[in-house]
Amino acid sequence: MTQKLIPDIVIGRLPVYLRALTRMLSQGRQVTSSQELGERLGISAAQIRKDLSQFGEFGKQGTGYDIEFLTKKIQEILKVNRVWDVAVIGAGDVGHALANYGGFHQRGFRVTQIYDNDPEKIGTDFNNIRVMDIQEMKKSIKKAGIKVAMLTVPAEVAQDTVNDLVEAGIEAILNYAPVNLNVPQNVRVQYIDPAVHLQNMTYYLD
Amino acid sequence: MTQKLIPDIVIGRLPVYLRALTRMLSQGRQVTSSQELGERLGISAAQIRKDLSQFGEFGKQGTGYDIEFLTKKIQEILKVNRVWDVAVIGAGDVGHALANYGGFHQRGFRVTQIYDNDPEKIGTDFNNIRVMDIQEMKKSIKKAGIKVAMLTVPAEVAQDTVNDLVEAGIEAILNYAPVNLNVPQNVRVQYIDPAVHLQNMTYYLD
Repeated sequence: MTQKLIPDIVIGRLPVYLRALTRMLSQGRQVTSSQELGERLGISAAQIRKDLSQFGEFGKQGTGYDIEFLTKKIQEILKVNRVWDVAVIGAGDVGHALANYGGFHQRGFRVTQIYDNDPEKIGTDFNNIRVMDIQEMKKSIKKAGIKVAMLTVPAEVAQDTVNDLVEAGIEAILNYAPVNLNVPQNVRVQYIDPAVHLQNMTYYLD
Repeated sequence: MTQKLIPDIVIGRLPVYLRALTRMLSQGRQVTSSQELGERLGISAAQIRKDLSQFGEFGKQGTGYDIEFLTKKIQEILKVNRVWDVAVIGAGDVGHALANYGGFHQRGFRVTQIYDNDPEKIGTDFNNIRVMDIQEMKKSIKKAGIKVAMLTVPAEVAQDTVNDLVEAGIEAILNYAPVNLNVPQNVRVQYIDPAVHLQNMTYYLD
């Protein structure tokens, strides 16, 4: 099958649809509509129908969407109908919270490696995963074939660390370091910086 | 001064510009250009000039931007030339990491209240802040006049908690609970959900 070029912004909404659908499933629901999804998500029903129609016919006029079917379809599209191994770089507070987070597995991810450069942390266990020496990172990630990393190192060392991750074969980076990263075109980065998110909102406060 | 209506997407880029400028300052730099900023951030120089020109004339043709001046201007625009008190709701791993995060203060925020419903956590100290009973939340936030909250409670109780926060006068919510929130029009929400960010990238992996 040739792949249609779907805008990034549409892909970006699918995880949010998936989250809402999974929640409905857990509440014992079986059928939903673009109207209901739209109300839950603050997105227009027309937008949701248009987004989903890019990938095929998932609902029937008048009967709505079968939640379980649509959930599975979106999981397939996003390639989270499998579990991706994830490396956490940096065993500080954020790395710790990520290693302990119980919600990843059912959403397509599991943390399998954690790295730090602090001798006091190396060798300790985070949620049954041994913290490894960051000196081993490039070799071990390559060997394990891991494609996804979460970066929680200080800003000063983030770019150097990312260069190593890219060499190791990482293609998707969730970056918690408060700095922009330069990566090759085949590598994706998403940014999480709570201060940036907060500053986004203070503009609108009195 | 009447306020021009600036698109949300422009406001959303300002914290990223600010972060890059602050970093340049800390590296001892004094002058930059839209070209240099653009290369650091993966945004076109023209876009940066256009964004900044919405707020006035901050640079001179040929001499670029004075970094300290531009930093102060963006801080004023984003209203982070002051420090906002922030309440953290939920004293789990994420709440703990947020309470401990040293980077907030210089970026306009300080955590002053933490709430949980767990008797074992209430009364303990997180980075010198006493964890309070969530039963006290509505009253204490209102009394302190806090406008900004970070929500780290389980998805099941997130909406009820947000309803209380809105009643208490909160107008900006950074939501770590993996669920969409319904809020009145005067309240802003930003979402952080690592699994959503990761799912955004797996689509593009092989």
